[in-house]
Amino acid sequence: MNPTLGVCYYPEHWPEEQWAEDAARMVHTGLTWVRIGEFAWARMEPEPGKFTWEWLDRAIEVLGNAGLKVVLGTPTATPPRWMIDKYPDMLAVDAEGRPRKFGSRRHYCFSHLGYREESRRITRLMAERYGKNPHVQAWQTDNEYSCHDTTLSYSDAARTGFQDWLAQKYQSPDALNRAWGNVFWSMDYDDFRQIDLPNLTVTEPNHPHQLAFRRYSSDQVVAFNRAQVDEIRKHSDAPISHNYMGRVTDFDHFKVGADLDIAAWDSYPLGFLLDRIEGDDAFKARFLKQGHPDNQAFHHDLYRAVGRGRWWIMEQQPGPVNWAPYNPAPLPGMCRLWAWEAFAHGAEAVCYFRWRQAPFAQEQMHAGLLRPDSQPAPALAEAAQVAEEVAALGRLEPQKADVALIFDYESDWAWQIQPQGADFGFFRLAFDAYRACRRAGLNVDILPPDAADLSDYAVVLAPGLMTLSDPLRAALAAYKGIALIGPRTDTKTDELSIPDPLGPNIPGLDVSVALTESLPPIVTEPLEGGGEFRHWFEHFEGSAPVLRRTAAGQPAIMGTKHLRTLAGWPCPETFFGLIRDLATEAGLTPMDLPEGLRLRDTASHRFVFNYAPEAQEWQGTTIPAAGVHWQAR
Amino acid sequence: MNPTLGVCYYPEHWPEEQWAEDAARMVHTGLTWVRIGEFAWARMEPEPGKFTWEWLDRAIEVLGNAGLKVVLGTPTATPPRWMIDKYPDMLAVDAEGRPRKFGSRRHYCFSHLGYREESRRITRLMAERYGKNPHVQAWQTDNEYSCHDTTLSYSDAARTGFQDWLAQKYQSPDALNRAWGNVFWSMDYDDFRQIDLPNLTVTEPNHPHQLAFRRYSSDQVVAFNRAQVDEIRKHSDAPISHNYMGRVTDFDHFKVGADLDIAAWDSYPLGFLLDRIEGDDAFKARFLKQGHPDNQAFHHDLYRAVGRGRWWIMEQQPGPVNWAPYNPAPLPGMCRLWAWEAFAHGAEAVCYFRWRQAPFAQEQMHAGLLRPDSQPAPALAEAAQVAEEVAALGRLEPQKADVALIFDYESDWAWQIQPQGADFGFFRLAFDAYRACRRAGLNVDILPPDAADLSDYAVVLAPGLMTLSDPLRAALAAYKGIALIGPRTDTKTDELSIPDPLGPNIPGLDVSVALTESLPPIVTEPLEGGGEFRHWFEHFEGSAPVLRRTAAGQPAIMGTKHLRTLAGWPCPETFFGLIRDLATEAGLTPMDLPEGLRLRDTASHRFVFNYAPEAQEWQGTTIPAAGVHWQAR
Amino acid sequence: MNPTLGVCYYPEHWPEEQWAEDAARMVHTGLTWVRIGEFAWARMEPEPGKFTWEWLDRAIEVLGNAGLKVVLGTPTATPPRWMIDKYPDMLAVDAEGRPRKFGSRRHYCFSHLGYREESRRITRLMAERYGKNPHVQAWQTDNEYSCHDTTLSYSDAARTGFQDWLAQKYQSPDALNRAWGNVFWSMDYDDFRQIDLPNLTVTEPNHPHQLAFRRYSSDQVVAFNRAQVDEIRKHSDAPISHNYMGRVTDFDHFKVGADLDIAAWDSYPLGFLLDRIEGDDAFKARFLKQGHPDNQAFHHDLYRAVGRGRWWIMEQQPGPVNWAPYNPAPLPGMCRLWAWEAFAHGAEAVCYFRWRQAPFAQEQMHAGLLRPDSQPAPALAEAAQVAEEVAALGRLEPQKADVALIFDYESDWAWQIQPQGADFGFFRLAFDAYRACRRAGLNVDILPPDAADLSDYAVVLAPGLMTLSDPLRAALAAYKGIALIGPRTDTKTDELSIPDPLGPNIPGLDVSVALTESLPPIVTEPLEGGGEFRHWFEHFEGSAPVLRRTAAGQPAIMGTKHLRTLAGWPCPETFFGLIRDLATEAGLTPMDLPEGLRLRDTASHRFVFNYAPEAQEWQGTTIPAAGVHWQAR
Ligand SMILES: [Zn+2]
Ligand SMILES: [Zn+2]
Ligand SMILES: [Zn+2]
Repeated sequence: MNPTLGVCYYPEHWPEEQWAEDAARMVHTGLTWVRIGEFAWARMEPEPGKFTWEWLDRAIEVLGNAGLKVVLGTPTATPPRWMIDKYPDMLAVDAEGRPRKFGSRRHYCFSHLGYREESRRITRLMAERYGKNPHVQAWQTDNEYSCHDTTLSYSDAARTGFQDWLAQKYQSPDALNRAWGNVFWSMDYDDFRQIDLPNLTVTEPNHPHQLAFRRYSSDQVVAFNRAQVDEIRKHSDAPISHNYMGRVTDFDHFKVGADLDIAAWDSYPLGFLLDRIEGDDAFKARFLKQGHPDNQAFHHDLYRAVGRGRWWIMEQQPGPVNWAPYNPAPLPGMCRLWAWEAFAHGAEAVCYFRWRQAPFAQEQMHAGLLRPDSQPAPALAEAAQVAEEVAALGRLEPQKADVALIFDYESDWAWQIQPQGADFGFFRLAFDAYRACRRAGLNVDILPPDAADLSDYAVVLAPGLMTLSDPLRAALAAYKGIALIGPRTDTKTDELSIPDPLGPNIPGLDVSVALTESLPPIVTEPLEGGGEFRHWFEHFEGSAPVLRRTAAGQPAIMGTKHLRTLAGWPCPETFFGLIRDLATEAGLTPMDLPEGLRLRDTASHRFVFNYAPEAQEWQGTTIPAAGVHWQAR
Repeated sequence: MNPTLGVCYYPEHWPEEQWAEDAARMVHTGLTWVRIGEFAWARMEPEPGKFTWEWLDRAIEVLGNAGLKVVLGTPTATPPRWMIDKYPDMLAVDAEGRPRKFGSRRHYCFSHLGYREESRRITRLMAERYGKNPHVQAWQTDNEYSCHDTTLSYSDAARTGFQDWLAQKYQSPDALNRAWGNVFWSMDYDDFRQIDLPNLTVTEPNHPHQLAFRRYSSDQVVAFNRAQVDEIRKHSDAPISHNYMGRVTDFDHFKVGADLDIAAWDSYPLGFLLDRIEGDDAFKARFLKQGHPDNQAFHHDLYRAVGRGRWWIMEQQPGPVNWAPYNPAPLPGMCRLWAWEAFAHGAEAVCYFRWRQAPFAQEQMHAGLLRPDSQPAPALAEAAQVAEEVAALGRLEPQKADVALIFDYESDWAWQIQPQGADFGFFRLAFDAYRACRRAGLNVDILPPDAADLSDYAVVLAPGLMTLSDPLRAALAAYKGIALIGPRTDTKTDELSIPDPLGPNIPGLDVSVALTESLPPIVTEPLEGGGEFRHWFEHFEGSAPVLRRTAAGQPAIMGTKHLRTLAGWPCPETFFGLIRDLATEAGLTPMDLPEGLRLRDTASHRFVFNYAPEAQEWQGTTIPAAGVHWQAR
Repeated sequence: MNPTLGVCYYPEHWPEEQWAEDAARMVHTGLTWVRIGEFAWARMEPEPGKFTWEWLDRAIEVLGNAGLKVVLGTPTATPPRWMIDKYPDMLAVDAEGRPRKFGSRRHYCFSHLGYREESRRITRLMAERYGKNPHVQAWQTDNEYSCHDTTLSYSDAARTGFQDWLAQKYQSPDALNRAWGNVFWSMDYDDFRQIDLPNLTVTEPNHPHQLAFRRYSSDQVVAFNRAQVDEIRKHSDAPISHNYMGRVTDFDHFKVGADLDIAAWDSYPLGFLLDRIEGDDAFKARFLKQGHPDNQAFHHDLYRAVGRGRWWIMEQQPGPVNWAPYNPAPLPGMCRLWAWEAFAHGAEAVCYFRWRQAPFAQEQMHAGLLRPDSQPAPALAEAAQVAEEVAALGRLEPQKADVALIFDYESDWAWQIQPQGADFGFFRLAFDAYRACRRAGLNVDILPPDAADLSDYAVVLAPGLMTLSDPLRAALAAYKGIALIGPRTDTKTDELSIPDPLGPNIPGLDVSVALTESLPPIVTEPLEGGGEFRHWFEHFEGSAPVLRRTAAGQPAIMGTKHLRTLAGWPCPETFFGLIRDLATEAGLTPMDLPEGLRLRDTASHRFVFNYAPEAQEWQGTTIPAAGVHWQAR
């Protein structure tokens, strides 16, 4: 695969006279792709049924003729104002019961069938018009599903849709009552129409009620997206993508991804560091202008799984953004480093967001490759450098990793619904496992929760997976490498109840969780021989060998050579030690990389990334701050 | 009195085949009581007017025949879903104006007269059916009034009820305007129907307006409860209880208690430590698995007062719960210690909550005496041990305490309405006084605010009592022991205004509060000779002797031998010193107990409890962590 | 000018028999002014159209005959309850969409034209009745516009008014779409009636949309106030004032002030210190009972500008208040110091709030000059002392300052709408500049953003002024002293967009902001030679000389001798150093005053104020804690 670069562009924001020059500069910079169209509905259809495609025709023509390939986005994230007159009830409703008004973007409820048809209609019209256009070489559906907390809506449309979804799933209210344990507080229903959405209850609603609503809501994103995909496929052979948001787990990205050809994600390392990732002040100060050294790689590996191997960065941070609590500039070199790290993890393309900083509206303080006055912003030269380097290096072929980590959106919902302890959850636990592998210099493949074949991996990690799918359960039972599961793995039924017998219930692993403790940050559970659990500690029973104990003598890890389970949440240092020992035992050769230095192997090369703000040594080579180094393997 | 043990049980949650075995195991564990029924309305009356009492008949029979005494709960905390169809406006409304929806529990407004009649109806039917049943030996009304912040409701029903209550109380709008000082900001009313509930105003509503709404709301709980009590008494001679929540002050527990025979409370020491009690991290880490060493005792003494001597623990934490910010497991021994401490304070019964951990619904992570798979949880053996020890020890007779502490729900409301300083209030002040007594090894009786006879006590404490009742004022004036009042005691009228002359106005105590300061945590008011006030400091005037001064020379305590008043809020160390000196002066022999060691005397025994996580010495006896020691007096 | 003292009084709160004695005591204390009437609508017009002026006639007569001058307030901040029956939709609506109910004060929406007419009507009636009354020597419109966050209302009346205001301003939806950049996210409008208020959108609404609503809302306050002023002027020659709130920037005080004769503000130094001013714990503990040493002076200088030279303190804190998070008492002497500091800054009058502490309603814990029992509170003697001292000192003439600081309400809105970094904004930046001047012992004049003549000042400061007015731009370009602007000055258009060419765009200053970074508190941008920027850092370009660099070598200050701009937000120590150097360069003689010591010059005297809690030396004179010293210049 030959990695490519691209950029996001909004011809409708600029005078038409400027398009050709912009296109020429993009090509000169070495860019291949240009994404357009995804916020332009009001300029495509300014009045219901009145279309103004001509400007878009010309924009595609200008860009294509310059040598660029167009990624065409459907504009459904920004329905025009007239749509609200047509469907006043299409607005999503927040958990407080308030309609979320027009005036920004994503102002629609996924459950509203009228709007879903409008979304299908505009997509069909675009596919009919541009499906065979030779310049349109890829598609994007909508934009950043779930951004601004838009998956969950408490609208009338959502309530009705949820009730119908429940009726379809459970067939009778009694079956639902039994499945949810509604007897608990006289919560039984006689009719599906009695079942309200799980917001604004006196105390927390029943956990399976909440989980059902999370599943229903995720299914609406899948259905909404599928309607667009269906229309595009009728008229175009170009691959279809969606640009996911990192750290967003409100819908099942794997299920949306099943309908797409390419999984793309929008990577904003600096904004995420301050806004959405745990870390103490010293850590955040140190990586303020580089981003978290493991966050991008984690999402690269996640979306490689979501895209079944095909993935892009559709939006790459090019400078300061406007939306984080604070918005510093990237260290010189980072806009190059981030692109190379994506390619090393198998990205087909990295598109910077955006070509020129818009001088107006909500994102006017968001940098582009150009400044608002069309002068080059710092990232432009870095993009050009990457383009040259990519051309020089040639094909990059992916390399299957040694370690597999299972990631499961439903488990994340289950932890959110039933956290049992404040301030931690599935995502953080999975990311802690990932970070331990990265520090050990290991390549990781992320796998979906229905992974049926683990045999290619030396080590498999499945922490926090509340429920196991049948294929994964079988695969773990049959696994011949070293699998580490827990805490909390396989401790709940599909309806978020406690199984009988108590979990985990994997053939060959005689361990069960007799009692669960969650711990505040002010205490830890120390382990024998050093290290500690935090946050979570399970009291284990069973005949499986105890592989490690707590300082107080309770089991900390139990299991077999091939399958073992953690009783607690290891602190980062402890997690690293566990992974290192496990990897060694599995025949791998783990390292202990400094915090800012990270590796990634392709079939032909080893890449070394220096996230630190100072130069670091790697096997005799000095890698400057924000530097990238690669060598043939 | 012979202390007894019991458990909460939900026959409707389990197959009928399991009931007999469960009952036999309860008896074998040494339990006497089994509480049932309080969440089962949907299973008693699945459709309006269609009853299915038979399962409950059989459950009572099975339990009773096994030798257990049944506490039968009315199920009114969980009205079935069909009730909402009948009375859509019966839902409580939160302070933001949003109805609090069906889907959990306590989804009713105390002011809704339609629902109040439904509550009376189901209670009458239960009383008629089970009032003479020999196995039903006690009753519980509803469940945990006020839990989930359910006393205050801003519904239409509440507004109408409040207006009628005001009309009854004030008779004319002018009288109300004068009583409330509505002239202040042109807040006068011409008609009671103009008076809205005191939420969502531009800035804070008038203080007497708020206080009136608190009183009205408390009265609705009293009326709701009384309707049930009236029905039960017509058909049953068994004592009637309600299970109060600790640290909940939203309604007047004394007034509800006046209609009951037994005051019960639900004791969750670990959840309360993290969620509802002040304390620094080191303190909370130290007592994480034992609970606050004084919190349980405080509530024992409070509910002994509410029950006029008769009180129970209706729900005793048996292991990790599900609802606190973090949910650790109790230290081994604590489930025994907590029961013994309750008995030492005069509890007739301690019932663990619950028999078997439910594998489903909201509380599935809440431990029971059994695990979900019916295996014994750690607390089962501790309960059995207590049962054996209780049988061996025989009768325990209560002992009147040397110290009295006045507790007043209305003062708590008044502090909340008019805190004058963030983050402190009446409950915390009263609890600080209580803790000082506990450290001094003193037994305390808590008295209601209309206590008329203090003569049996050597020391009386009445901190923070904004308003004094006539009997208490007279009792304090006539008191011959040593009474310590203040800060803020007797400084307001019954309508939450400043009296003229300035308070306090107790015959024989010539002190008045000329000026009040509230202090942020960053400063203190040091006292002459050491110690300090925090939070609160009053400038005193008057001819009473100054018994202590601040370092700056202002009066810190003024008064007579028998009645003295504090100008500020003593820090814990200072409060202890004051109590120790006072007790000594009153002829008592105070100690200085270490933080984790606590005492309680009955007529015949002295009990010593070790809340510390390590063994402690007590007069030559080593008491292990979580240990209990008793000796004849 | 001969400074005078006064007091706020509520005859309607007290028995008529008490008025004469109160008046006599006021006169005896040395007070000149008595403000009355502003909350008494319900007592002036208890029913619609039924008036009870007689008590007010008599009150004015009693006060006037005692020798006092009356400031008569219009009562429109407290519309009576019957007004809500007449105009149920007159209540303001909060940003969450909830009407803000009757029951306290300020329960009206500025956009409601029905209520605006009622406000005009009651004002006209008062002006007709009292306009020629010889005792009424000044007027106050309404009370504390914007208090309790009441400028912005999201009511139907506001939406309609906003749409009309937009139509008037932009004339066509297309013009508005272009001005706002609505193309950005398909936010175009076809009709002004489609434009909603900018609340409850999915993510932030367009910035010019927000700014337009801020301007519209400010204009409504201006119009509301002007309606009253117009009525009063028809019948009275007495000067008209309004009592502004410090640190409130929700409407443009300059624009309201343009219709008034006197700008007054309500000064509560202790409440503001804890509630509304940045500062660490040690600083707040040190000045807990004195207030921030620069906050009062800043507002004095601001309202001197708003009043075009004529300004008062209409409410001066006399002791503990009731509304701050904590409410300590002022250090003895502070009630004198605050008054003297106001006079030194040019106040015509200082009125204490209030005469007698009200024993009832919301402010019963707010001190007065008298206690509720009519005994003197500590401030009474201090007021009397000031009165004597003022009489002894005689006339005080103002002195033009050497330094000018531009203050701009619209820039504050722009920073709020587009902060780009959490926790900082325009007010804080302007106040930091002011504090640096105060530490340097410099007198400051605050100027409005349309200041056209700077020639009288040696130094001009214009930090954070996002947009420059044409007159100010010209004045800066022509300026011959030393002007320091930035960061962020002149970087936006009037529609909150980025200008082309990039700003600042002041003739003679070739600097532009190529890139902007906002920084979290955990990092700084160090400067060459010491000092540092915090919060904000701009990357400069241009041909102007670099006057200072960052430690990393980037420009920190660029410009000419007469006009230079800051690339970042200097820390307090750095800001002081810059101001000191600038002032020296401009021929002034800056000092370095200790934190608690502050100066102010009049034409004839230098005043020295000791805010510290201990005595300090000033040029050989010992000034006690809370002391004031003055000497002829
Ligand atoms: Zn073409
Ligand atoms: Zn029987
Ligand atoms: Zn007269």
